[in-house]
Amino acid sequence: MCDICVLNSVKEKMLSRRAFFSATAAAGTAAALGAATAPPALAQGHGTIEDMTHAFDADFPTYLGAPGIEMEQKFNFAENGLNLFTMNLNEHTGTHIDAPLHFSADGASVDEIPVTSLVAPLCVVDIAARAAEDADTQLTPDDLKAWISANGDIPDNACVALYSGWGTKTGGEGYRNFDGEKMHFPGFHVEAAQMLLETGAGSIASDTLSLDHGASGDFATHYAWLPTGRFGIENIANLDKMPASGATILVGAPKHRGGTGGPARIFGMI
Amino acid sequence: MCDICVLNSVKEKMLSRRAFFSATAAAGTAAALGAATAPPALAQGHGTIEDMTHAFDADFPTYLGAPGIEMEQKFNFAENGLNLFTMNLNEHTGTHIDAPLHFSADGASVDEIPVTSLVAPLCVVDIAARAAEDADTQLTPDDLKAWISANGDIPDNACVALYSGWGTKTGGEGYRNFDGEKMHFPGFHVEAAQMLLETGAGSIASDTLSLDHGASGDFATHYAWLPTGRFGIENIANLDKMPASGATILVGAPKHRGGTGGPARIFGMI
Repeated sequence: MCDICVLNSVKEKMLSRRAFFSATAAAGTAAALGAATAPPALAQGHGTIEDMTHAFDADFPTYLGAPGIEMEQKFNFAENGLNLFTMNLNEHTGTHIDAPLHFSADGASVDEIPVTSLVAPLCVVDIAARAAEDADTQLTPDDLKAWISANGDIPDNACVALYSGWGTKTGGEGYRNFDGEKMHFPGFHVEAAQMLLETGAGSIASDTLSLDHGASGDFATHYAWLPTGRFGIENIANLDKMPASGATILVGAPKHRGGTGGPARIFGMI
Repeated sequence: MCDICVLNSVKEKMLSRRAFFSATAAAGTAAALGAATAPPALAQGHGTIEDMTHAFDADFPTYLGAPGIEMEQKFNFAENGLNLFTMNLNEHTGTHIDAPLHFSADGASVDEIPVTSLVAPLCVVDIAARAAEDADTQLTPDDLKAWISANGDIPDNACVALYSGWGTKTGGEGYRNFDGEKMHFPGFHVEAAQMLLETGAGSIASDTLSLDHGASGDFATHYAWLPTGRFGIENIANLDKMPASGATILVGAPKHRGGTGGPARIFGMI
């Protein structure tokens, strides 16, 4: 197809706003996840980078079970000379951010989270052994005290991450672990969130579907944490590859104005 | 509203997939862009971080003029106890990535771009003075030779960025600079892209709407660059705050499977 034909084809189709925004399921066109890669060295020898982000499509587990994304192919290479999709996307899909606005009347939206909060010391609290025995377990103040005893004080502005081992379950029903009445996966106990407010932590992250444990019926941790102006990360990946302390997390939050959160690309710098 | 009421309200509404994915214009609810923040120091004193990402909403300029995002508020704090939006989003909106798949039959999708390519030495080629006089100017092999003479060889896997000064124009018509027939903004000359293939650069970035200049009718640079397995960045911000050489770019590309690109959060580490 000639280049001019491509341009004209694009203009004819794209200038129709209705067509531009119509949505039909096309997630089946999604390709397979790229192969894992070795962490790259930073240009100035700052260390290595780990990808802490799950790839996602319409099959990725969501809190309420409905697909979080639908993709519609607007142009395909064979006919138009280029490929392009529009997405119908729930903000809280895949590895994503909860902005303060998500659980407050007028808190900061995702585009308003300062970069000073998106680059932070990472503290990984490992409760995986307990979670393997009890899917309803929660990260408690005692777990934080044990982390502090082993690693020192939690740094100001730190991102405190709950490692439950759930990241290996995203391909099956075990991730939501729904019994017909409730889901069962680990989360932060509200008292741990309250303790972290006193330490000056800036964000909390979970490798499960929620900051609250799955069986919670009241979003107690969301309500304790987000209205204070701090943010959360859900479905974070590869915490098992990060040290308990000493790493830096770089949170590539989306920047759509007024958003309550959204899929984020997250890197861990060791 | 009681917490249980909130949860039930959420479940009732969210379990309706049709409601979940219906789309109406609600971009007007978007909040103002957050205030700029001073670059934070990295936890281990690795330097500072600059945000190289534009905040965007339905008013952000797009290549073909149609809004790139529509937001629909599914839950609001007053009635539901939480805020949440769904987005109808064109992949190529705001500061975003062009994956190889965008202009090739079977190139890498955005989720398949290896992390080793998303963290790269940043080379900033400044053609802003010329662009101020001629909106149709292009970054040429001579500009690259001048950069190399001043800064040394282009590092392997480098991201080579075109700084035209266009980033200050996103709030008005001057960004697309459409004269009724063509747009007028700077871009990479195809011969510069071909030269960069020989140097081993891994990506190219422009602070305008396209890798190609606005008046281009043939996407020559897209076709020269993306099918080789390299990616591009469009509408990158704050290149004026980055050094010509020595910085590292961290490209927070989205990770939806099979995507041809998407809005990205991009950090520059000095």
